[in-house]
Amino acid sequence: MLISELRNVMKPVKAGLWLLLFLSLCCFALFAQTRKILVETDSDELVKDLQSASSQVRVVAVTKANAMAEIADADAFVGSITPAEVRAGKKLKWVQIMSAGAEGVLFKSGGNDLRDSQIVLTNNKIVQGIEIADHAFAMLLMLSRDLYTFYDNKQHELWQPPRPFPGIELNGRTALVIGVGGIGMQIATRAWAFGMNVVGVDPEDKPFSPFLKKVVKPDQLDEVLPEADVIFVSAPHTPKSNKMVGAREFELMKKDAYFIAVSRGGLYDMSGLVKALDSKRLAGAGVDVTDPEPLPKGHPLWKFPNVVITPHVAGRSDKDRARMVGTIKENIQRFVDGKPLVNVVDKQKGY
Amino acid sequence: MLISELRNVMKPVKAGLWLLLFLSLCCFALFAQTRKILVETDSDELVKDLQSASSQVRVVAVTKANAMAEIADADAFVGSITPAEVRAGKKLKWVQIMSAGAEGVLFKSGGNDLRDSQIVLTNNKIVQGIEIADHAFAMLLMLSRDLYTFYDNKQHELWQPPRPFPGIELNGRTALVIGVGGIGMQIATRAWAFGMNVVGVDPEDKPFSPFLKKVVKPDQLDEVLPEADVIFVSAPHTPKSNKMVGAREFELMKKDAYFIAVSRGGLYDMSGLVKALDSKRLAGAGVDVTDPEPLPKGHPLWKFPNVVITPHVAGRSDKDRARMVGTIKENIQRFVDGKPLVNVVDKQKGY
Repeated sequence: MLISELRNVMKPVKAGLWLLLFLSLCCFALFAQTRKILVETDSDELVKDLQSASSQVRVVAVTKANAMAEIADADAFVGSITPAEVRAGKKLKWVQIMSAGAEGVLFKSGGNDLRDSQIVLTNNKIVQGIEIADHAFAMLLMLSRDLYTFYDNKQHELWQPPRPFPGIELNGRTALVIGVGGIGMQIATRAWAFGMNVVGVDPEDKPFSPFLKKVVKPDQLDEVLPEADVIFVSAPHTPKSNKMVGAREFELMKKDAYFIAVSRGGLYDMSGLVKALDSKRLAGAGVDVTDPEPLPKGHPLWKFPNVVITPHVAGRSDKDRARMVGTIKENIQRFVDGKPLVNVVDKQKGY
Repeated sequence: MLISELRNVMKPVKAGLWLLLFLSLCCFALFAQTRKILVETDSDELVKDLQSASSQVRVVAVTKANAMAEIADADAFVGSITPAEVRAGKKLKWVQIMSAGAEGVLFKSGGNDLRDSQIVLTNNKIVQGIEIADHAFAMLLMLSRDLYTFYDNKQHELWQPPRPFPGIELNGRTALVIGVGGIGMQIATRAWAFGMNVVGVDPEDKPFSPFLKKVVKPDQLDEVLPEADVIFVSAPHTPKSNKMVGAREFELMKKDAYFIAVSRGGLYDMSGLVKALDSKRLAGAGVDVTDPEPLPKGHPLWKFPNVVITPHVAGRSDKDRARMVGTIKENIQRFVDGKPLVNVVDKQKGY
């Protein structure tokens, strides 16, 4: 009777223990699957949006001030991660940056921690090619059609055709597109439609395209530079592309060429550009990116009438946020499903 | 002997008479072939250039002051001919206008003399499509990329991203091209390359083109107008197209559409445009053509920041003169050779 009584007493205890074990396993499974993703943002809307990508992640908004306190057990980081954060993030498996350019976290961060780690880096490449190419042509056409003169005249309600009209047509001219990626291909397509001959410069082998007459490697830049009527800079900023359009390259440019920079200011030499404009060799320049940014007050570039300066907004539009958030959400889903991420950066190449 | 002496005397006389007859015939032939072409210009260079087209023409430069004195025996007239000049030019077989738009000599001249005559009218259609389409996009992109704000900031050396950035991307939006001719097709090609869906409006049956999603007749304008994000006006000015974009059409436009006019100011209603801008229905407008021209000081259109105004220069470029003179020279050669001229205007249609 003692044993049977004991059995009777133990039955509910055993059942309870099984239940406890089951619940513990459930909790563990849930805990194991719930990834902690830090997002560097002050936008509640963005956090909510990213959280909606998966119930298996916990999205935690951080700032530079509290990121270190949250990073030890984080599985992923969305934003401009620092080397110190990489070192403190022992569990980090994935870093997603908001921009296309990865030089900030790879080459200009002051450390190679991310570059030499096993952490997968993804970016927002291609996402912004459309509006950046629109912007590149906006700057070029403002110059080639002399719109700044008419804008000045408008302030005085002056309807006055300049004689001779200094504007040129793009048809039949040559466009050099340095960097034939997400931005460069969009520029090439537009340039083609304006009747331009498009020459690309890119380290990668590019497939044939009706919009590109030819693509040469960066070591052939010297050969194609003197042919170009418009030089577009749309390459990523890497140790190899740093200042690739230097003082010498500006001197190689054709007289009356236009220079348009829309990817990163680090790709060209600011003094070389100023010198080329000063000596009236260039017909004009449009720069959305400079080095440094902001372009300081008093910089000589401000003073040229034939220079369009915009404050790194080429990638802004009414639709870019949706595409950017879409890419990050896609990657969050892929991250929890253990699938390969999209827009993976080659951390050694830097793009 | 008398007869034979007479024969001897007559021989040289007869030979002389034959020579005289021959020379007279030569002179007559030469005179008959040399056509007198009046050219309304003050440019010696243009006269020299056109004269070089054929030795069988005599190019005579005239102004409005002395054209009547020269026109009675003129075979052709290059310039903006008046009804009085048409009536005085009894021998006129051909009139070539410098512009593409023929409304000045056909509908706005105050007389139907040229329209109802047997005189062949040729124009410079197609010649200026390239640079006008460049200009149309220059105006549109200056607005869609908010370049006027940055131009203002530049005067203060202010590198300041506007938040939120008001610029939009053209990709995926709808362009309505009113008039799918020499200008309109160039606009359509560019719009396509920017990722736009292009809808044309034209009275003619147009061949299929990869750049045009569809082309509708002018009586279907009401149906397609509310779909358009950008409305380009690139049609010729005729009695049928006069004010075809009227107050009602501006009201049919989508909120935040852009209106771009590059052919003739007579095609749209200025007060309708001002009203649409005043009520903030349009996102902006770019007008190279107005009615009247010049746009008078004090006109309300001057005051909108989101309006680009250029003084009828869309057709100007570094290459348009060569194409225009080329077309006229081609026609001079064809005129003396009795071949059909190029760019013949349907004088009843007006284009």
